[in-house]
Amino acid sequence: MSDTTETTPGWLTSDELELTRARMPILYVEAVPVRVDGSGEVTHVGLLLRIGPDGTVTRTLVAGRVLHHERIRDALLRHLENDLGPVALPQVPASLQPFTVAEYFPTQGVTPFHDPRQHAVALAYVVPVTGDCRPRQDALDLVWFTPQEALSSLVQQEMPGGQGVLLRQALAHVGCLS
Amino acid sequence: MSDTTETTPGWLTSDELELTRARMPILYVEAVPVRVDGSGEVTHVGLLLRIGPDGTVTRTLVAGRVLHHERIRDALLRHLENDLGPVALPQVPASLQPFTVAEYFPTQGVTPFHDPRQHAVALAYVVPVTGDCRPRQDALDLVWFTPQEALSSLVQQEMPGGQGVLLRQALAHVGCLS
Amino acid sequence: MSDTTETTPGWLTSDELELTRARMPILYVEAVPVRVDGSGEVTHVGLLLRIGPDGTVTRTLVAGRVLHHERIRDALLRHLENDLGPVALPQVPASLQPFTVAEYFPTQGVTPFHDPRQHAVALAYVVPVTGDCRPRQDALDLVWFTPQEALSSLVQQEMPGGQGVLLRQALAHVGCLS
Amino acid sequence: MSDTTETTPGWLTSDELELTRARMPILYVEAVPVRVDGSGEVTHVGLLLRIGPDGTVTRTLVAGRVLHHERIRDALLRHLENDLGPVALPQVPASLQPFTVAEYFPTQGVTPFHDPRQHAVALAYVVPVTGDCRPRQDALDLVWFTPQEALSSLVQQEMPGGQGVLLRQALAHVGCLS
Repeated sequence: MSDTTETTPGWLTSDELELTRARMPILYVEAVPVRVDGSGEVTHVGLLLRIGPDGTVTRTLVAGRVLHHERIRDALLRHLENDLGPVALPQVPASLQPFTVAEYFPTQGVTPFHDPRQHAVALAYVVPVTGDCRPRQDALDLVWFTPQEALSSLVQQEMPGGQGVLLRQALAHVGCLS
Repeated sequence: MSDTTETTPGWLTSDELELTRARMPILYVEAVPVRVDGSGEVTHVGLLLRIGPDGTVTRTLVAGRVLHHERIRDALLRHLENDLGPVALPQVPASLQPFTVAEYFPTQGVTPFHDPRQHAVALAYVVPVTGDCRPRQDALDLVWFTPQEALSSLVQQEMPGGQGVLLRQALAHVGCLS
Repeated sequence: MSDTTETTPGWLTSDELELTRARMPILYVEAVPVRVDGSGEVTHVGLLLRIGPDGTVTRTLVAGRVLHHERIRDALLRHLENDLGPVALPQVPASLQPFTVAEYFPTQGVTPFHDPRQHAVALAYVVPVTGDCRPRQDALDLVWFTPQEALSSLVQQEMPGGQGVLLRQALAHVGCLS
Repeated sequence: MSDTTETTPGWLTSDELELTRARMPILYVEAVPVRVDGSGEVTHVGLLLRIGPDGTVTRTLVAGRVLHHERIRDALLRHLENDLGPVALPQVPASLQPFTVAEYFPTQGVTPFHDPRQHAVALAYVVPVTGDCRPRQDALDLVWFTPQEALSSLVQQEMPGGQGVLLRQALAHVGCLS
């Protein structure tokens, strides 16, 4: 999970969040932003670019916690706006059926997904965006890749915690493997 | 299935289509046009209105055959444009995974779906439309209903061949039962 | 959500659980136990029967929390065994894609689902069971209904908190509306 | 699509089938046979092995046509029994929602799927089998692979017409990428 999730304050203080993270699975939503053509086919996938203090490049999906008393579709919309800016015009899906559920464990190897901070369970959706994306928060940029580029080992290596696997699941779901 | 499906010529002559219909399941796509709010929640469902020679009111979903060498997403787009007009701006889904598959049998009672003319198998999708709908072909009008209205027995009775069941499956899929 | 969920101890004390419930959405799994015929078609739905101190009959699905560091499929299996007994032989699905996600809010009317104790988010699955079901915990019995019986207003009225809606969504998903 | 599909007689003569194939998309079902553990997780994938007259090894999924007036679940069951033998004990899914729809075109490059004989549209399902598999028809053997082995380039190369892509989509759907 990306660090941006830290910057969204919930109804919990930092201490309380730390305590809860040690005791409960934390509910997340995760979105794969895509560009589609007129027939709905995915042409590009958007990945957030971050550069660490040591110069490490990481690319992530849009992700964040669901807050107390917040609907999943409102959480999705909030994180999409936080990460892609106010004019991205995301098309939040009409159905809440996710294409998969990603289970991030603090222990490596239980699933392909890993988050050292917590046990997070993310409902994952493919979300077409038609507007202009201007990353806010701590992301440097949003870069659009063709499905083929996104599946390349170069890009996959830059996606931490198993998000590369989740991206491949998304591309499989929309029929963009080759 | 609605009569509009008759009006779309394929690569088959009428005679050939009749012959094939008696021998093979015919592949259809079926779309439930919806209006959604900013968070993706369905607010209205669009049903095509037709009035028969005897004054009978029928309400139908968008439906039609997939032609030889036509992609499913192209068939969906073609039938949506045929039935809703050129400026309906339908959002064909990024994934081809349908919410269900409806099997129309010429014999009643095999499934909830019935088509006296043929054995048709329809891949069913919920499709948000954001533009202006101007029914063409033989439909009189496209009428928008709230999910609650669409689930009423009045509307359900006006939907032939089990399309009322398919509409309820669509509303269940998008979480609009109550 | 059913009261049985209370009886499953987590890694939280009761006080901590109460505190967390007021601050975070709590992750649940929910299973609709079904009997299927040789072709996979659902013939019966199993509902847990409980009788309250005042004689009120309630019927519920299998439901319960996902614990810290527990996989969703392990939580499903644990709650199915808790509620249906050790020889029910449930077929936990190969894919974690739920047929829907049910959002239970402590406030009525936000969604069709309501839980006065908490904001719970339940991943919902249809689970065929082939063995002998012997309810344990506080349920009196597991009763099998045909889809038609389960959809009757009598049964629906006995399902609290919107579980009747979830059951109808499950039956829509498996094609058992009529 | 595998050659076994040829060996299942429909209601069409060979000539009629050839004629229809040139004019209409032909409806198929396709099944990915899997072994699962007690929690439903996929441990192995079964692939049919065939050796051509020239010694070429090909590995295929279970696939075949849906006949006139045949339900999808009956077609699935029939092809699973034809290809895996009478005691494979396949668990045909309760829901007809496929994990994807594979479009095989006679022209290469329209989709990842290619069938020189016809335009075939296949509803694809993951099907756990618990019994003993004894391939019949023209398959030499059914070989079980771990997901990792099945994803290897060696196995992928032996799967014709894009079935390797479909297999990867199935493994993505059940969370078995790494």
